[in-house]
Amino acid sequence: MKRGEISQPTLAYESWGSLNPGKDNAVLIFTGLSPSAHAASSPLDRATGWWEDMLGPAKPIDTNRYFVVCVNSLGSCFGSTGPASINPVTGEHYRLTFPVLTVEDIATAATHILDAHGIDTLHTVLGSSMGGMTALAFALLHPERCTRLVSISSAARSLPFSIALRSLQREMIRNDDAWENGNYPLNGNGPISGMRLARKLGMITYRSAAEWAERFGRERATDRQAAEHGFGIDFEVESYLESHANRFIGSFDANCYLYLSRAMDLFDAADQGGSLQASFAQLRLKAAMIIGVESDFLFPIHQQEELAMALQDHVEQVTFKRMASIQGHDSFLVDMDRFRPALSEFF
Amino acid sequence: MKRGEISQPTLAYESWGSLNPGKDNAVLIFTGLSPSAHAASSPLDRATGWWEDMLGPAKPIDTNRYFVVCVNSLGSCFGSTGPASINPVTGEHYRLTFPVLTVEDIATAATHILDAHGIDTLHTVLGSSMGGMTALAFALLHPERCTRLVSISSAARSLPFSIALRSLQREMIRNDDAWENGNYPLNGNGPISGMRLARKLGMITYRSAAEWAERFGRERATDRQAAEHGFGIDFEVESYLESHANRFIGSFDANCYLYLSRAMDLFDAADQGGSLQASFAQLRLKAAMIIGVESDFLFPIHQQEELAMALQDHVEQVTFKRMASIQGHDSFLVDMDRFRPALSEFF
Repeated sequence: MKRGEISQPTLAYESWGSLNPGKDNAVLIFTGLSPSAHAASSPLDRATGWWEDMLGPAKPIDTNRYFVVCVNSLGSCFGSTGPASINPVTGEHYRLTFPVLTVEDIATAATHILDAHGIDTLHTVLGSSMGGMTALAFALLHPERCTRLVSISSAARSLPFSIALRSLQREMIRNDDAWENGNYPLNGNGPISGMRLARKLGMITYRSAAEWAERFGRERATDRQAAEHGFGIDFEVESYLESHANRFIGSFDANCYLYLSRAMDLFDAADQGGSLQASFAQLRLKAAMIIGVESDFLFPIHQQEELAMALQDHVEQVTFKRMASIQGHDSFLVDMDRFRPALSEFF
Repeated sequence: MKRGEISQPTLAYESWGSLNPGKDNAVLIFTGLSPSAHAASSPLDRATGWWEDMLGPAKPIDTNRYFVVCVNSLGSCFGSTGPASINPVTGEHYRLTFPVLTVEDIATAATHILDAHGIDTLHTVLGSSMGGMTALAFALLHPERCTRLVSISSAARSLPFSIALRSLQREMIRNDDAWENGNYPLNGNGPISGMRLARKLGMITYRSAAEWAERFGRERATDRQAAEHGFGIDFEVESYLESHANRFIGSFDANCYLYLSRAMDLFDAADQGGSLQASFAQLRLKAAMIIGVESDFLFPIHQQEELAMALQDHVEQVTFKRMASIQGHDSFLVDMDRFRPALSEFF
């Protein structure tokens, strides 16, 4: 796996609202590892989006006022070019011939969407989780296009605890014989056992112990599977993980997961300048809002405080929101009563 | 897998010091999931024990004063009968015919060691991690034999976050084709790939994000393995997990791991009375010391505060020690400068 080039990449995105004549009302959203560009429903696709409560007419990100674009990350598998796509040069799927992917690549790819719309400068670049890293990378690499940044449950760099967790998730997938060194059939089969394990570990790191204690306690599962060997599903929390994992494994390509997961490990905003301060000196942001959640142990609150503090020397107006949500890293997807007001305030 | 009986079980233990004529100076130690009974070196086995700093002449648990017994848990694989042992009735290894194992079984098995030595009442029953659960179960099931309890980094019951983590570890092992439904060869092969994953997840939960940030940061591994597919070892933290896992997989039986891991999930001290308070009303303890670590997220500090609080209504003297160690759940094995004084104070 080396740095390299890909030919004629496709970038999938969805948009809501209209670009104004001054072309200065565009909001660009980068997603976490697994979502598609379908952040909210639209006349073209009425299915509920992953951030339906946040985005739409008269919602916190008001599509009556803003032209909102959500992009499917380069390297993902929901329309954008990634390891599961066909390499036009060879006519074969990329699989592991896809070059090393970085968060910076994902960020820069999105400039083509702005160019296509004639957008010089964004109203706001926004991202959550991996998308927060991507938004920050975008602001660092394309400072002239960014005046406002919102980073949610993200971080300026990956630390060893989250690297260890993601590394282990990748090993679970690679260890599955059905991965076949990346050459599994692309018809929905493949390393589903490894993907199930990886998703379960993901779910464990996306929520919090406090939420689960409240929600599941020591409840026994109603669909208790008394497997013959006796190590089936006993507790409600095990049943919950099983059903979440089963929903995921059919929908996400394993090689794409590996590439995106590793891109997060590699991310360090200090790489753009030698130190975080030197990197941030390149920013031309006027305002930034950093939102973190106290119960998030994957992107812990102290990392988000650090990000906010480091930005303060270079950005006129930095707002740091410390959320008391108990749903951990996923809070921005579920604790809308806390997150809606924060985003409303910003927009 | 059902409740059942095992015939003629063997219980391995080691002892240090001498039983006094009154037979009232015995200290019984229960271990966590993975250690053997070799807590400290002795003339019979000069190898360094897993708690060498804590146990010995003039050490916090002073073997000049106490007769100290450490037991290899029933169900483990270091001398005590467990799934890897031969069932004397059939002449075959138990494997998954071993009955459901509970923490209470592990506790009660140890009474035979006391009986063999003519010990009616212990000076202290002590345990760390799973061993803390076992020590508490021992005090609940055999109240007349217990006057003092030390519980370290343990809990009165398993909550869904730790259940989820252990359930996932078991699934990693079961998913390994080499597990063969428990019928793998017992020559050191078997589900080593699943055991490696399970141990890595274990290590992630045994330490803390803060310790690793300090220790590894974003250091790249010196033995960086640039696997052809590019998903090898990049970071020092990945190299650390790999070497720890490799040391473990040769030494611990996979089926034993499954049984002991599940025993922890099943443990709830409230089972002995219907509620924690009703259970604890049966205790005849005079003193208890509960030690917890702030950075432990597997057996979080609030669970140990709860244990100490619940004991206070039934035990005359309860001491709660809140340790600021950054090494997480494993602190009692490594942060000896904090743990030695606490144990010295108790003994």
